[in-house]
Formats: sequence, C-alpha cells, structure tokens
Amino acid sequence: MVKRLSLGEENCPVARALDVIGDWWSLLIIRDIFDGLHRFGEIQENLGVAKGVLAARLRNLSERGVLETAPASDGTAYSEYVLTKKGRGLFLVIVALRQWGEAYLYERGEKHSLLVETATNRKVAALQLMSSDGRELTCDKTSVQKLAK
Amino acid sequence: MVKRLSLGEENCPVARALDVIGDWWSLLIIRDIFDGLHRFGEIQENLGVAKGVLAARLRNLSERGVLETAPASDGTAYSEYVLTKKGRGLFLVIVALRQWGEAYLYERGEKHSLLVETATNRKVAALQLMSSDGRELTCDKTSVQKLAK
Repeated sequence: MVKRLSLGEENCPVARALDVIGDWWSLLIIRDIFDGLHRFGEIQENLGVAKGVLAARLRNLSERGVLETAPASDGTAYSEYVLTKKGRGLFLVIVALRQWGEAYLYERGEKHSLLVETATNRKVAALQLMSSDGRELTCDKTSVQKLAK
Repeated sequence: MVKRLSLGEENCPVARALDVIGDWWSLLIIRDIFDGLHRFGEIQENLGVAKGVLAARLRNLSERGVLETAPASDGTAYSEYVLTKKGRGLFLVIVALRQWGEAYLYERGEKHSLLVETATNRKVAALQLMSSDGRELTCDKTSVQKLAK
C-alpha cells in the first residue's frame, strides 16, 4: 500500500497484514509458489506480469520475511523462491479468497480449479469460524474489540 | 487490478476474487462496514482516504454486488452502505488476514484489536482447514486440481 499505516491502523491486524502483503500481485505470486512454481521465469510466464513488477514484488516479499531464495532443487545454477513459515501462514487467506470466489463468482456449471486433499482427491471443506469452545459462529455473532485510544 | 484476467486466471477462484475486490482499500472499506461504519463520512474519516478514492471504491463494490446503499437507519436523509450477502461472504477473508497478522506481525506483548464472540467476549478460534470428512489439513496435504487446457 502507498499509504503508511496510521496509529489506529497499526492496532488492526487486518490493516497490518495488507500492508505487508503489498498488493494483489503479491498474493498471486504466493498462490503460484503454493502451487509448485518456484522459478522467476515460471511465475512470470504464469502471471503474464512484467519482469520489473515481479522482481519488485519478490524483493518486497523477501524483505518482509514471507519468502526466501534457495538453490535450485535440481542442482542447476538457478535459485528458487520458497515460502517461509510466515509465508505458508498465508495459506488460509488464499483458501478464504478461493472459497468466496467459488461461492459467488461462478455461474452454475461453470468450471474452475479445485483445492483437494491430495491423498483422497476430495475437495476440502468450507472454512468455518468457531468459538473458542467449538461452536460455529457467523459474522453477526462477533465484534471487534478495539484498543482504547 | 489493472490487468484483465487471462483465460487461465479466469479458472482460478483466487484470481477472480481478487479481480472483484479490486484493491486493499476495498477490503479495508468492507472491514469498516463489518465493524459498524455505514456512512461515507465515517468511513472516510476512519481510513483517512481521499474522498475521490473512497467514492470510486464504493461505486466499484456496488457494481460488483458486494455492497448496496440503504436509507439511513436513523431516518435522516443520509444513505448508508451495507454489505450484501455476497459482501458478508468476505468475512472469512478478513478473519484469515487478521489471524495471519496476529500470528506474524506483532511483537510479543504488543497490543492489537481482537475479534471476539460478542455474547461471551471471548476471542474466536483460529481458522482451520478440514477435509470433507472433518480431519485437520495443512497446506502440504492439499493440491490444486487445474482444468485441462
């Protein structure tokens, strides 16, 4: 984001998360790495993004600790981009976006990619917010407790 | 996003979701409406965003069916922005961003706002991906099944 976080926004984990991820390109890059693309050229080709844009996003994500470079797994001179633990933590953000897209942005019968459990080839369950003692919660049952100013 | 979706991206619900939401401002606007801000001036003041930017984002989100306007709940001449069912569906995207922010972007002891169950005032549970038959899944147990080209 171009805007720097205000003090109020600093207290909001949503705003801070968005500030670190940077922009949509960055989330698509992270999605691609989750999907097994690890080289600059592979990601660039898949996204159809300008090299300069991709390089800038990769640099930002590295500086923010979301990904790191590693020697190529096949022993060649290339380096590969891999997610750190912090980067892998974004998995549920991507799953939530996917499930919203699946629910609201496709016509009935329109095809899209699927997130499956690899071992069973079955579609994963829809994410569900739960209370601390395991009851299902909807958005109208929750509220954000803000810090006193 | 400035870029139009390619055919490959059209098949990806993550990309389609990001294309509809638009940018980070849009998600912060949606977060604010979840948090109970419904008027242009309230949202503008909370985000510290230029009026023109906010107006454009609200217009896009309305056109995309994420929010709609309604007469002010207090009977004044103002109109209010409320989330549609499709917009409320973004709740888990915001929760996932929040929980990632909480887990990785705050120092130990550093304060931030909390998402609680209103009735109990207790923090909600961390989101967890489950298999179709209710087993916990991690990202390395899943894969994306793409459409044949």
